[in-house]
Amino acid sequence: MVEAGGYRAVARCDALRRPPFSEAADSLFRPYLSEAHRATLSQLREWMEASGLTVRLDAAGNLIGRYEAANIPPQLAGEGGRTMRAAGDAGVGADSDVNSTPRRSAGTSPGISGGAKSLILASHIDSVRDAGAYDGPLGVMLGIEVVAALHAQKKHLPFAIDIYAFGDEEGSRFPASMLCSRVVCGQMARTQLDVADRDGITLAKALSDFGLDIKRFTEARREPSELIGYVEVHIEQGPVLEAEGLALGVVTAIACQRRYAVTVTGVAGHAGTNSMALRKDALTAAAEMALAVETVGRAGPDDLVATVGRFNVAPNAPNVVPSEVVFTIDVRAGEEAPRNAAAETILSRIDAIAAARSVTVEHHLIHDLPAAPCDPSMMDLLSQAVREAGHTPRRLVSGAGHDAMAFAGAIPTAMLFIRCKDGISHNPLEAVDAADAEAAFQALLGLVLKLGEASA
Amino acid sequence: MVEAGGYRAVARCDALRRPPFSEAADSLFRPYLSEAHRATLSQLREWMEASGLTVRLDAAGNLIGRYEAANIPPQLAGEGGRTMRAAGDAGVGADSDVNSTPRRSAGTSPGISGGAKSLILASHIDSVRDAGAYDGPLGVMLGIEVVAALHAQKKHLPFAIDIYAFGDEEGSRFPASMLCSRVVCGQMARTQLDVADRDGITLAKALSDFGLDIKRFTEARREPSELIGYVEVHIEQGPVLEAEGLALGVVTAIACQRRYAVTVTGVAGHAGTNSMALRKDALTAAAEMALAVETVGRAGPDDLVATVGRFNVAPNAPNVVPSEVVFTIDVRAGEEAPRNAAAETILSRIDAIAAARSVTVEHHLIHDLPAAPCDPSMMDLLSQAVREAGHTPRRLVSGAGHDAMAFAGAIPTAMLFIRCKDGISHNPLEAVDAADAEAAFQALLGLVLKLGEASA
Repeated sequence: MVEAGGYRAVARCDALRRPPFSEAADSLFRPYLSEAHRATLSQLREWMEASGLTVRLDAAGNLIGRYEAANIPPQLAGEGGRTMRAAGDAGVGADSDVNSTPRRSAGTSPGISGGAKSLILASHIDSVRDAGAYDGPLGVMLGIEVVAALHAQKKHLPFAIDIYAFGDEEGSRFPASMLCSRVVCGQMARTQLDVADRDGITLAKALSDFGLDIKRFTEARREPSELIGYVEVHIEQGPVLEAEGLALGVVTAIACQRRYAVTVTGVAGHAGTNSMALRKDALTAAAEMALAVETVGRAGPDDLVATVGRFNVAPNAPNVVPSEVVFTIDVRAGEEAPRNAAAETILSRIDAIAAARSVTVEHHLIHDLPAAPCDPSMMDLLSQAVREAGHTPRRLVSGAGHDAMAFAGAIPTAMLFIRCKDGISHNPLEAVDAADAEAAFQALLGLVLKLGEASA
Repeated sequence: MVEAGGYRAVARCDALRRPPFSEAADSLFRPYLSEAHRATLSQLREWMEASGLTVRLDAAGNLIGRYEAANIPPQLAGEGGRTMRAAGDAGVGADSDVNSTPRRSAGTSPGISGGAKSLILASHIDSVRDAGAYDGPLGVMLGIEVVAALHAQKKHLPFAIDIYAFGDEEGSRFPASMLCSRVVCGQMARTQLDVADRDGITLAKALSDFGLDIKRFTEARREPSELIGYVEVHIEQGPVLEAEGLALGVVTAIACQRRYAVTVTGVAGHAGTNSMALRKDALTAAAEMALAVETVGRAGPDDLVATVGRFNVAPNAPNVVPSEVVFTIDVRAGEEAPRNAAAETILSRIDAIAAARSVTVEHHLIHDLPAAPCDPSMMDLLSQAVREAGHTPRRLVSGAGHDAMAFAGAIPTAMLFIRCKDGISHNPLEAVDAADAEAAFQALLGLVLKLGEASA
């Protein structure tokens, strides 16, 4: 048993903060299919292989480390990538061994050796600009540590384990987020290779330049029937665990989300000459609406959040009564019923405020994402594992989107949250207590072992 | 007696809407010391002379039409600009007659001929970009019409009348508004000639290029002891008169003004992961503050106005709880006591809101302008004249600044407001009912005659 795997996982995330693992000299920026991505894959491959994983790169640029099931002879698994490779695989450029022509093993699905189902432990390794070190990579590192612990004991389970390091989750290069997990779940079409980055480089070209075969892009898909489940460990990116003094959280669902654009139109006027009684002030109307959004958000269940994040005033001059405000409303909850109820209440209050103030208001639904509920049995096992690691399994909804969303509808899915400092993420100040990561490592290992017992 | 002077005044404003009287082809923009300004002076000179005025240009670029007092022999006054000229005068480039060397008449102050005091009827002829036709010029045209009416009757008063067309009030070229009335009131120093426009052209160079003698810039000043008063007619630029169905308003004061910059600092967070109870949302805090500003403004006297006009949110992204809002507060009232009380109440409420929400707030006083009260006797005479013209003399505070501000502390000052459509100004949609301008003409003429009777 590897002790202190959580500590090593944090140290490895720290080691990937700077070039060559970042495109920026003094901060972390690791976009999909960049040279920083390539360098990171090379380092990850080394760490994966050292932990007993067999490594391959799929056609979407996801690095996959496989630890075979108990029914696979040990000498076939985890010996320097010489295991057989499945369709959809492609090589990391620097490694001629895995750049050899892939061959399809008849009668098996991609990535499944010997017919055993597999459990995916995954997260993403791309980042936003000026990112923190743990959002994504920590989940990958902890997966590697779990296998390292099993491998040290030469313990195999009734299922294989596939550690996925997804190439894109943040959408920081192409206008499509969670791209890689969606490919694995069969939710991306070849036609979507046409999207381009800011420099006009299409996804197709970027994949091809990275050494991947775009014709086989969709072959990165995994068959749900051959997967026993998906588990993702991620920093909370919020303040709930820290506020309650808890290290770990068991995610019950990834929130459903509705986003609206609202335009309030009043009448501009000179701030000195327009008496208060005669004004149709778009700003004070919108301010009252923003407070209504907050009030409705506060009145709902704990996992309901309602936010006015963007708020633009025109003409935005100190001596002019504002004529127009355009703002966004973002409403999320673990379940759709309370979210929908909150959204409807907000919209009706906004309409009433506009009517009372004789301003006009228009609102449009920008997007509507369904909830992604986690699997109750997996949640129970994870809660037990958290308790056995000496911690309280606080259940909470993930307000942020995660790769787990793509899997939740198809296979049993669980997510474990790790407390982060001040709830800060997408920021160099993002910080995790290594002791919390160690607790997560123990809990994740515990869950995997429990799943093994359940499958035996 | 010229009938329908108000109608002609409106028509003349309309005639100055486009090139050569505007710098813009399809809209009105007439900045100080521009070619459009020069063309306008040339046209105004023609109209002034045709109405019996003697025309000169002072060293600040103000066009002055003088109608002599009764004790000046008529043959010396108003005959094509051949009257004697005072120090500080300078020529309009196109008119060689008034470009001749000025000479000082010993023992008299600038602009005073024969020792008679003078009444100033004035407004400005510059404009903002994309301006309306009446903000400023209508007051000048109505002054000309009053003299035209007197001149038609060969009626002179115990005082001279100086019609001033100020070259700058809007500050649309140099970063200094009401520049020309402040020169006339002795509130500008030669050192202020260093200010530059957006193209880097200094005021000194612009004056010089316009044909004016910058060494004599401050000689445009008029001695208060030689002025009996200042009267300005202006469109209201607000909705009060229209809302009450009244054509004219008698201004009691130009409002005192305080402006503050407020910075609210909360904590940014992911809109999905930050539970409502733990947020320190700068936007909802600032929204509550903006509503407090409005509430205090509404609770005060009719002439109190309180406005949040500029409001900038950071990071201003739909999925981020805002961390910072910077906004302005503008508070005005006819008198300083209610304005100060309102400002203090607003600031203390803002502090309380910040404390209750655990956000921080800083506020800074940006500027503090005293009130400019109008002269009670002049207001009474003007009210009588409005009544005799068949209208109700609605008394109101001017929330906007005007050239009259510069004079109000030094000589008896009055302002007459004309209703404008929907309170709109600084906009091509600015509109005045010509019948209202006619009422203003009658009232202004009535005031001038009453002042004449009072001075006899």
